[in-house]
Amino acid sequence: MTRVLGVDVGGTDTKAAVVEDGGVVLASRTLPTPRSPGGIVDLIAAEVPGGVQAIGLAVPGLVDERRGVAVWSENLDWQDVPFADLVCERTGLPTVLGHDVRAGGLAESRLGAARGIRDVVFLPIGTGIAAAVILGGRLHAADGYAGEIGHVDAGHSEPCLCGATGCLEAIASAAAIARRYEARAGRAAPTREIVAAAQDGDPVAAEVWEEALDALTGALAWLASVLAPEVVVVGGGLSRAGDALFEPLTERLARRLTFQRVPRLVPAALGDRAGCLGAALLALDYLTD
Amino acid sequence: MTRVLGVDVGGTDTKAAVVEDGGVVLASRTLPTPRSPGGIVDLIAAEVPGGVQAIGLAVPGLVDERRGVAVWSENLDWQDVPFADLVCERTGLPTVLGHDVRAGGLAESRLGAARGIRDVVFLPIGTGIAAAVILGGRLHAADGYAGEIGHVDAGHSEPCLCGATGCLEAIASAAAIARRYEARAGRAAPTREIVAAAQDGDPVAAEVWEEALDALTGALAWLASVLAPEVVVVGGGLSRAGDALFEPLTERLARRLTFQRVPRLVPAALGDRAGCLGAALLALDYLTD
Repeated sequence: MTRVLGVDVGGTDTKAAVVEDGGVVLASRTLPTPRSPGGIVDLIAAEVPGGVQAIGLAVPGLVDERRGVAVWSENLDWQDVPFADLVCERTGLPTVLGHDVRAGGLAESRLGAARGIRDVVFLPIGTGIAAAVILGGRLHAADGYAGEIGHVDAGHSEPCLCGATGCLEAIASAAAIARRYEARAGRAAPTREIVAAAQDGDPVAAEVWEEALDALTGALAWLASVLAPEVVVVGGGLSRAGDALFEPLTERLARRLTFQRVPRLVPAALGDRAGCLGAALLALDYLTD
Repeated sequence: MTRVLGVDVGGTDTKAAVVEDGGVVLASRTLPTPRSPGGIVDLIAAEVPGGVQAIGLAVPGLVDERRGVAVWSENLDWQDVPFADLVCERTGLPTVLGHDVRAGGLAESRLGAARGIRDVVFLPIGTGIAAAVILGGRLHAADGYAGEIGHVDAGHSEPCLCGATGCLEAIASAAAIARRYEARAGRAAPTREIVAAAQDGDPVAAEVWEEALDALTGALAWLASVLAPEVVVVGGGLSRAGDALFEPLTERLARRLTFQRVPRLVPAALGDRAGCLGAALLALDYLTD
């Protein structure tokens, strides 16, 4: 029986799980994310129980999986951290570094909402929007640059934090919906209340929500035309809107496409455990290969 | 030494080449495309010389490579033709069916303009616009549905033959440039003359050309954000515009992107032999696996 530790470093919390073949979770913990890369290495070293044969570590930002280097994270304020080597030196265990969204997508495609599907896009929509592209069962990383669907042009004229104008993330992320509603309504509300208000006919909420849905439909139509995934797994905070999100999105996408394959849109199944499970899968894959 | 026959069925001409390991072409012929699938099988059977161990056949339209079936071609007016089985039964040789653009992309990535590159998009721009997506050195087909970049929304309001509005192909293909120029200038001209006139300051030509360049830049920015190819190989008739195309496109794309990896844009190297060479590579791969 193979046993690994999967670790997912988030902006606030870090999740660790001991996982066996096939994704069976033996134990899991959530801890506050340490302030420095060295603190993260310390945390991992303290969490490795006996019997673990490899470590999978998922981190946010720009990640070069092939070299095992966390190239950059604005959130966690680091640059060029060779996490795979650092954790391996400290624990004596082979360590695979992954990207949080790509690891989450791998877990959803192997253990979650897209089990058994070969061509999958995982689309978490929260503070930002990113994608994990899994084609023929294999993650596409492009040296860490793949999946930045939050920064494609959605055809509007609002600025994005990345420096460009019109980004998908600046109109359709959960954070953007809240920010744009506050700017127009003159009062703040959580995204789920804005979505509910849009359903109830609040014209400002409805306008903001319609614009987000249209932008997401455009991005999904692009994916369908160029990559033709069978399934798009929608995750992140916005996916908790449920039918209010999935029904209009499915309907608009089918209307937009003509001859293309229409992907099935499904909610993520693994919630906030996806990154940690995906990190464990990377370590299990390493031991298998 | 392994020897195969590569065949590329086009709307007008069919190309056949006898190819050895590594893509060495021993002989090649161009013949008019027969009117029916049966005629194509006859042509192939007549072209197979001694010593050939397998056949690769590339066709246009919707192609399911895994099943070896040409699902649909508007141009050649066929539906669900099991070409792999038909050619194999007739010639006694293992036959691999491929898609013309994907086969061309494979050839450009192995033998042509993107040799040695892992993440490549091949973008032929002619009567239509399509893409072959090669990630980690592997072609992405998605059961035949991948690569329809000609039918992504480019944000304009003109209709496309596919039934949708705003498609990239309807504003940026060589055919669209000629059609849109004729509609505005009141006289027809070949695309290369329109591009030259745009360079010389003809305002109508410049407007049509600018709109095509902007739409292409948007599509390339999308590819860079989501797939992050290292190289985009631009082929088809429009690529013969040379610097008039590549210089403004490269410059606009770099300006549009912020943190994304900027792909190198390079002209196709194999010209109209790409599909035929790619078909041969599919047959060589079959014999190797």
